[in-house]
Amino acid sequence: MPKLPFLFPRELALLQRRWNKEMRSLPVTAEPWLAAKARQWDSQTLESWILKHVHTRGAREFARTITRAVLCAEPRQVSYLCFLEYLRQGESLESLIGIEGGAQQDKFAGGAWQIPQRMAAQLGDSVQLDSPVHAVEQHHDGVSVISNGHTYRARHLIMAIPPVLAAKIRYNQPLPAKRNALLERMPMGSVIKIHVAYERAFWRLRGLNGGVVSNNRVFNVVFDQSLDDDGMGVLVGFIDADHAIAMSATDEATRRQQVISDLVHYFGPDAAHPIAYVEQDWTAEPWSRGCYVAHTAPGVITSFGDTLREPCGRIHWAGTETATRWCGYLDGALQSGIRAAQEVLNR
Amino acid sequence: MPKLPFLFPRELALLQRRWNKEMRSLPVTAEPWLAAKARQWDSQTLESWILKHVHTRGAREFARTITRAVLCAEPRQVSYLCFLEYLRQGESLESLIGIEGGAQQDKFAGGAWQIPQRMAAQLGDSVQLDSPVHAVEQHHDGVSVISNGHTYRARHLIMAIPPVLAAKIRYNQPLPAKRNALLERMPMGSVIKIHVAYERAFWRLRGLNGGVVSNNRVFNVVFDQSLDDDGMGVLVGFIDADHAIAMSATDEATRRQQVISDLVHYFGPDAAHPIAYVEQDWTAEPWSRGCYVAHTAPGVITSFGDTLREPCGRIHWAGTETATRWCGYLDGALQSGIRAAQEVLNR
Repeated sequence: MPKLPFLFPRELALLQRRWNKEMRSLPVTAEPWLAAKARQWDSQTLESWILKHVHTRGAREFARTITRAVLCAEPRQVSYLCFLEYLRQGESLESLIGIEGGAQQDKFAGGAWQIPQRMAAQLGDSVQLDSPVHAVEQHHDGVSVISNGHTYRARHLIMAIPPVLAAKIRYNQPLPAKRNALLERMPMGSVIKIHVAYERAFWRLRGLNGGVVSNNRVFNVVFDQSLDDDGMGVLVGFIDADHAIAMSATDEATRRQQVISDLVHYFGPDAAHPIAYVEQDWTAEPWSRGCYVAHTAPGVITSFGDTLREPCGRIHWAGTETATRWCGYLDGALQSGIRAAQEVLNR
Repeated sequence: MPKLPFLFPRELALLQRRWNKEMRSLPVTAEPWLAAKARQWDSQTLESWILKHVHTRGAREFARTITRAVLCAEPRQVSYLCFLEYLRQGESLESLIGIEGGAQQDKFAGGAWQIPQRMAAQLGDSVQLDSPVHAVEQHHDGVSVISNGHTYRARHLIMAIPPVLAAKIRYNQPLPAKRNALLERMPMGSVIKIHVAYERAFWRLRGLNGGVVSNNRVFNVVFDQSLDDDGMGVLVGFIDADHAIAMSATDEATRRQQVISDLVHYFGPDAAHPIAYVEQDWTAEPWSRGCYVAHTAPGVITSFGDTLREPCGRIHWAGTETATRWCGYLDGALQSGIRAAQEVLNR
């Protein structure tokens, strides 16, 4: 980050204390619409809140950068109540962005992509790939899920897809208007994730940990993803929020050039010569429509939020957005699946 | 409206003057994202703006009631920039809500439903009803529109449906991520429209014009829709924004009771015995997903707005939301259709 005014660290501490205090007033049942100040907090954007309550330029920029990093959205797009609930679900800001003891601490040896692959191996033929669901039909004795030329029947259905994708499915028995309205108001964040590999983790030799949070570069959040000191050096990072929208409209060569230029700015000329560059533009991914999670603009939680986990006939809702803890994370996805399965068993 | 404090009329005049001044600074090309203060105005909700700039309770309630009436959304859900652009497109608040010389002045003798019917009569077999479009496929030499079991081919396509419905269609050639993001962030307002008929326009006999704008009843906007003094009396009115969401979840009997109770409150016991009650719940209408028009939350116009009228290959965008004047009105729909047709002709 660039040089920041002297007052910034002090105001940052106050800011975190205030957020932690306010988030603790939200119901632990993940029903933020029931909070005493729900209406007040949901009537403003996080940006309005920052302008009113944060006074030093440094602390303001910090709050904005953090919002972009955790929700992949601009602070002017996010309800302050939505932001507080996200903090609450992740225990605190420190826990969400923290490495040691925080949400960024653990990595999967070999990568998280192995999870769905290993699950699929156990499940065998019951996993159907390349079968996007176009329609869901509820009947008196069951539910049909219709894909390209195939129909799958079940007694109950658990939907575990992003809200914006659930909104695109045709339902023969219309969802309640309020539930539709919520699904149509939960857009995903915008992010491009990039791995850059080097022959050596050269930054470690210079005593740097490879971590970056920037408020004025495009490739604005970076972590060290290298496995050990001796092998290949890997930096993983993100282009998020408005930067992601702008860079998604360019091409890979342009993005690569921008990313490497930012890495040279952070880590010096050694960063100019990677041995590999791998990117995933989540804003252009049709089966997620963005990442890592859906957010809500002001007025959405308080007008429509109470339909979030309400079953619609034989349809039960899972997916990380319906979690009561760790919304936006694998933990939240798992928890929501267990809850939805329990709902079906209890019917 | 209930009794309002003394200062209200004065502040209301100041408020209208300020809105009219600010809206005149928006580009006449309907590109509000280019306005000098676009970022500032789009970073806050209309509710935040009201709390900061309007001081008397009466003027605040007026601003909120007006927002609900024109956009069918709560002020906490709407970007202040979106609201200003809506005012600009309709020339001014006075023009939008005005009867004499305003947008509410003219009615179609026999009802506006005759317009599509008469157009359809002229067009004959080329109008296909009961054929919701599921997919649009672009090829090197044309575009296919796919409905239930039917495929229609054309050289170019003009899409004139609400953004939220355009977002539900499958595209073989994906729309640009930014265009998708905009479509996924333009929800429709929430409104239930109700006609109540009486044997006589009894309110006229008592010197009342039948008009109501209320800040504390459910059936909160009412107009006299009677044809003449001698015949049947008809009141048309609206349940909008949060009230519409709540009332849509009940049943017609409950809504009818509420509406008549509100009319008795406004017009006395004569209102208790209508001869007919006809309602249209737009929040539950699958082919509009709300009414009268889409709105945007903060941060949407400035991040995604510039894709609003940008053609995507062979797809051209019409519909009232893409108008440059009278967005949300028949005039805007017509204007947008003419513009889109011209785009196709100019290719």
